[in-house]
Amino acid sequence: MRLISLLTDFGTRDEYVGVVKGVILARKPNAVVVDISHALDPQDVPGAALMLKAAYPFFPQSTLHVVVVDPGVGSRRAVVILSLEDGPLFLAPDNGVLSAVLQDPRPKAVVRVENAAFFLEPISRTFHGRDIFAPVAAAVAGGMSLERLGPPMAAGDLVRIDLPAARPDGADAVTGVVVAVDRFGNLITNIDAGLLGAAFHSQLQVEIGGQRIQGLVSSYAAAAPHRPVALIGSRATLEIAVNCGNAAETLAVGRGAAVRVAWPAGA
Amino acid sequence: MRLISLLTDFGTRDEYVGVVKGVILARKPNAVVVDISHALDPQDVPGAALMLKAAYPFFPQSTLHVVVVDPGVGSRRAVVILSLEDGPLFLAPDNGVLSAVLQDPRPKAVVRVENAAFFLEPISRTFHGRDIFAPVAAAVAGGMSLERLGPPMAAGDLVRIDLPAARPDGADAVTGVVVAVDRFGNLITNIDAGLLGAAFHSQLQVEIGGQRIQGLVSSYAAAAPHRPVALIGSRATLEIAVNCGNAAETLAVGRGAAVRVAWPAGA
Amino acid sequence: MRLISLLTDFGTRDEYVGVVKGVILARKPNAVVVDISHALDPQDVPGAALMLKAAYPFFPQSTLHVVVVDPGVGSRRAVVILSLEDGPLFLAPDNGVLSAVLQDPRPKAVVRVENAAFFLEPISRTFHGRDIFAPVAAAVAGGMSLERLGPPMAAGDLVRIDLPAARPDGADAVTGVVVAVDRFGNLITNIDAGLLGAAFHSQLQVEIGGQRIQGLVSSYAAAAPHRPVALIGSRATLEIAVNCGNAAETLAVGRGAAVRVAWPAGA
Repeated sequence: MRLISLLTDFGTRDEYVGVVKGVILARKPNAVVVDISHALDPQDVPGAALMLKAAYPFFPQSTLHVVVVDPGVGSRRAVVILSLEDGPLFLAPDNGVLSAVLQDPRPKAVVRVENAAFFLEPISRTFHGRDIFAPVAAAVAGGMSLERLGPPMAAGDLVRIDLPAARPDGADAVTGVVVAVDRFGNLITNIDAGLLGAAFHSQLQVEIGGQRIQGLVSSYAAAAPHRPVALIGSRATLEIAVNCGNAAETLAVGRGAAVRVAWPAGA
Repeated sequence: MRLISLLTDFGTRDEYVGVVKGVILARKPNAVVVDISHALDPQDVPGAALMLKAAYPFFPQSTLHVVVVDPGVGSRRAVVILSLEDGPLFLAPDNGVLSAVLQDPRPKAVVRVENAAFFLEPISRTFHGRDIFAPVAAAVAGGMSLERLGPPMAAGDLVRIDLPAARPDGADAVTGVVVAVDRFGNLITNIDAGLLGAAFHSQLQVEIGGQRIQGLVSSYAAAAPHRPVALIGSRATLEIAVNCGNAAETLAVGRGAAVRVAWPAGA
Repeated sequence: MRLISLLTDFGTRDEYVGVVKGVILARKPNAVVVDISHALDPQDVPGAALMLKAAYPFFPQSTLHVVVVDPGVGSRRAVVILSLEDGPLFLAPDNGVLSAVLQDPRPKAVVRVENAAFFLEPISRTFHGRDIFAPVAAAVAGGMSLERLGPPMAAGDLVRIDLPAARPDGADAVTGVVVAVDRFGNLITNIDAGLLGAAFHSQLQVEIGGQRIQGLVSSYAAAAPHRPVALIGSRATLEIAVNCGNAAETLAVGRGAAVRVAWPAGA
């Protein structure tokens, strides 16, 4: 039995997540389901794509990740299963939510989920999490071959969204954006640690929200309290934080804010 | 082992839900517990009754649903187990929270839970979720016969609350109310799809919050963005939504708001 | 396999809790993980210490409780495992978060977790929940002997924080503080029921937020609606509540507020 993870924008106030689990367990009583998050902003496809990328490498190789952020529910958008060779499966609407996973270098295969024999009857027009994703997830987690769900399609034909990419800004700088603000107010950027040049971290200058931060610290606790600092965060990207505080509030910036990192010429 | 679902107003900030699960697992290490929701408004018995009705049909037939929305905790209100023939069990305070389940046509049996041998000692006066519901749930999920918990009672003697019902308004209209606002701001009404007459959906006129919506759409995505639309939602009732938006905010209405649906005479 | 509980300040908006579970399940597919709470205020070590004390006695004796409230993440603060004889294990940063558990009278043993062979590689500087606590928890839950994780240390050498203690105020009164405000707005104090003298509960006078409450009620439901009452709560401490209301809002007090209970001289 494959582990099933869930990543949705359903929230946890309503019965929706519980019902999805109920449908799965009604079909596969031994299924194990783990929540990644249900608190994505409604219809936040880019946020889901990036959160999925941050999470899936840490799950068991054989996990089935079910992503239901689905503004097109009830329309003719496809439902697909993407598989990475020797790796996880992803069950999701074909709306770009798998764009970040598609950067994984492993060979890929895709099936378009069309076989209604695996769906609940009747299928609502508003809750495919319950009526399509849950029963299909149960079948796949239980070992059903993907070919039975529908025809293959090319991974290159999947819908992709542009995820913000960090860019070099001359030879001695890189610009990016804040892609997520976490629960602690930490500002997570799209600037990979590997882009930060060969300069010592103490020589980097980070600009965000009209402020300049000199150098990177090695951890939150290595910083003086209540002042913005930059460091390499858990996604191995540049992160702006405030030790014992909230960087988003202190700097009054949020998702989408521009970030620039510069280093001495020639470093 | 029966699956256990939990539906409470405990929230997830405090340790309460975790403690309930700890007590269950201390007694039945193999128990599987699924959350329906813990975010009901405090003491919201009608909201719990309706959410339970929306959720339980999708769980395994043998599920034990534990509902702890219990303003009378510590008083002499009874604790009961309702069973539906060939169907689920419901463990709850006898305060009306099972009123919507009682509409299920299956034959019913009820036991009044009185056997303190199954309770934690000492029993607090404020947290029967921990001291009564959890250990009783563990015992029942593990297969203990219900007769050992207490005497039978008639289902007709259970406390019932008036749940808002949609009503015909002449021959060509029906009136109801918003019974829930979900995480997306969708306005879920108590108007069953079956009440909407034989008219084509395009002919229906929906009135809510001083606005008139012409016709039903088939899905969120079939609607123009940012405008209120009506459709049949996942509870098979009329729902008012805004594609890529929040109907509760757009219309400035909430739970309890009146809704009227009219169709052409003779349709 | 030991049950694993999680108590963190990670919130549930981000992927952090899901990733911790993913790492555990990647190493021990049969592990069972229960959430106590992830909604502690960021870096709220005292709050975590008290919540842990309220929760752990209700879990299976052999549970491994993992507490990650860790302002010192990435610094040289230690990670430790505390074990209570014939009882639970606690995996936590050595920052005082185990201070309330240390009041448990059972004999204790402590190991300092240093063996990096059990950690994820590379170890981030910001997410030891994922890189240290999760893989170590998986190993320990699976039965690995604690000696393999690192050297023993004396329980007396663990960091302790001062948790607010209730104090006698003359012979006929006791003073304490509100240590938690729960989801219902109930004000949970640090005044143990056993400190309230031999007086009848009806004779007690509780002072909080400039108001005086006469006597204790036996349950929320025994009180008139909408008026502040005092009672013994689920932690067996004095609690101030409002039946069908929110005591924190009604009294405009919160965590840290002073509470005084007096009884007639000689009672």
